[in-house]
Amino acid sequence: MPDPNLAAVRARCTRALTYHGPSHESPAAMLREVTALVSDDLAPDNYGEGDLIAGFEREMADLLGKEAAVFLPTGTMAQQIALRIWADRKGPRHVAFHPRCHLELHEQKGYQVLHGLHGVLVGSQHGLLALEDLRTVGDPLSALLLELPQRGIGGQLPTWEELTAIVSWARERGIALHLDGARLWESAPYYGRSLAEISGLFDSVYVSFYKGLGAIAGCVLAGPASFIAETRVWQRRHGGTVVHLFPYVLSAKAALARRLGRMQAYADRARAIAARLRAVPGIEIVPETPQVNMMHLYLQGPKERLEEAALAVAQETGVWMFGKLQPGPIPSRSLFELTVGDAAMELEDDEIAGLFEALFVKVGIAAE
Amino acid sequence: MPDPNLAAVRARCTRALTYHGPSHESPAAMLREVTALVSDDLAPDNYGEGDLIAGFEREMADLLGKEAAVFLPTGTMAQQIALRIWADRKGPRHVAFHPRCHLELHEQKGYQVLHGLHGVLVGSQHGLLALEDLRTVGDPLSALLLELPQRGIGGQLPTWEELTAIVSWARERGIALHLDGARLWESAPYYGRSLAEISGLFDSVYVSFYKGLGAIAGCVLAGPASFIAETRVWQRRHGGTVVHLFPYVLSAKAALARRLGRMQAYADRARAIAARLRAVPGIEIVPETPQVNMMHLYLQGPKERLEEAALAVAQETGVWMFGKLQPGPIPSRSLFELTVGDAAMELEDDEIAGLFEALFVKVGIAAE
Repeated sequence: MPDPNLAAVRARCTRALTYHGPSHESPAAMLREVTALVSDDLAPDNYGEGDLIAGFEREMADLLGKEAAVFLPTGTMAQQIALRIWADRKGPRHVAFHPRCHLELHEQKGYQVLHGLHGVLVGSQHGLLALEDLRTVGDPLSALLLELPQRGIGGQLPTWEELTAIVSWARERGIALHLDGARLWESAPYYGRSLAEISGLFDSVYVSFYKGLGAIAGCVLAGPASFIAETRVWQRRHGGTVVHLFPYVLSAKAALARRLGRMQAYADRARAIAARLRAVPGIEIVPETPQVNMMHLYLQGPKERLEEAALAVAQETGVWMFGKLQPGPIPSRSLFELTVGDAAMELEDDEIAGLFEALFVKVGIAAE
Repeated sequence: MPDPNLAAVRARCTRALTYHGPSHESPAAMLREVTALVSDDLAPDNYGEGDLIAGFEREMADLLGKEAAVFLPTGTMAQQIALRIWADRKGPRHVAFHPRCHLELHEQKGYQVLHGLHGVLVGSQHGLLALEDLRTVGDPLSALLLELPQRGIGGQLPTWEELTAIVSWARERGIALHLDGARLWESAPYYGRSLAEISGLFDSVYVSFYKGLGAIAGCVLAGPASFIAETRVWQRRHGGTVVHLFPYVLSAKAALARRLGRMQAYADRARAIAARLRAVPGIEIVPETPQVNMMHLYLQGPKERLEEAALAVAQETGVWMFGKLQPGPIPSRSLFELTVGDAAMELEDDEIAGLFEALFVKVGIAAE
């Protein structure tokens, strides 16, 4: 349950470090944005049908270079369905992914419990899944899921050469390739390639509209037309065929129009911020040079004291840093995931560094 | 896919027969309603947590007389989860429901394919599930689902005596009772009992916020606290833990405030309309006297010609009757489900009868 004190302090902040900031992230702001977009004669979608949703799905399929696409409420639903379809088509119940994969860590093992699939974890907790890791897999695989970028390790991306080598390895073995593109929009600038070119390496692709794009919620799964037709059957089984999804669809359209073109700027800014933060004692950055618009900051100091300090900094400066940190791999470090969006774009590098310096002064790590 | 001609005619209609009418049912109208409700300092829900959603779940639990409740995107998700939890607790994989149950007909057999449950169909297609039908069940049951009212047969309700006898039968056998209350709001006036009193017969209850209440989407599953805690785990597995559900939650609050108090009036009006329509040749009404705010109208004439005629009536009168009919049990009859909401409340009984008379003239059933 949310901490009321934390929520109250956050509500009084006018700026923030991560994502798009309080002026965009309130329900009032997000609802006003979609309400302004909607014309009086727009008809609602009905259980997945209608011009609005079908038109948006068509746009997304084209953008991703796929035959078809379907709008779904969550990535959890999209990706379990994708792997289930590939497993049913290919035969084996084994599907492979990185140990920090969302399906393995954040979905209460839905892929196992609902779909009877077996996860094969490939690669190490702290590094990218590599071709050499795949060579050690003994189980027959239906599908291989790759997450671009790999969020759990600070948003890292394989080189294009490594990526295409992995893809070739899977193709040669008849293994379906699924792209967890929760942050695919953020990856394109790094590769200097179009979304369709990156998606083209994969049989199916999931993309999300919140996170970097900042929509209310929702995602798209794209792939061959027959695959998307099957997805719609599974969508109904999962309870994802919501009578009206228009608030999410409208919000996704608005978010794409507003932020897809900013991804290069966010990533450039992430690298500049990282360069500045490397000069602040008590912070270790993963990856050292961000590849996309995110990075993991391992902060020195006891987790609870850092959290209290961030609250104090927020009260003093009006800038929201973070509420709860994640425990780090060693007791002396806690993890803050910094995603550069509209919020950080409004702050100076020195101002951001100053927030962390103030934080460490409060926990007694650095001298004032 | 929607018929563009049909959509265009519908868009030009200013009134309607069923539900709440074009002035309420456009995305623009629904979004304006929720946007007007939201205060600038309201914080968003996050993956099912936050004051807005928790407060609404508390209200719904209280209204339904249950320990706890959880807001979910769809009834499909809610009810599969409910039956799965009861099956896991009780042991048998068999769960019983009416042959017109939503789980059996409209969910692509998710309860079987995702949850490994076996459906036992109890009662006949055209009548209510009765105590005597239950006595013929040979399989051991974990749960019995009752739908109040039974939508597939025109919204019929068992008498309170029959209902409590069924409940006692299940209780004596240790079978969990789940209420499909998609239209529970609509049932309370018939029984002259509170929602909590009706829900009190059941271990778990699902209620919907669209349909009779006219919200954008969403539902609540209510029951014992431990059951709801388990539901949240399954919600995540299903992909129902949407990052932000606030558009739906706000809309549900607005719809409850606006329409819960109108259910008696809707039902009274349904009975008056049925009484008037009985005088129109070519219509058979199920049930003859509506018990809630809905009824099934079996219309004489070929389905396609009736549909064309309704389109012509809509163009001439500006009142939307229906788009597509459901095929009836015999070729000479097609089914139109009439749900009385704000839309029908704005029409006179004679005006409604006149629409059907005009319809039959066009298909050549009645003389002009």
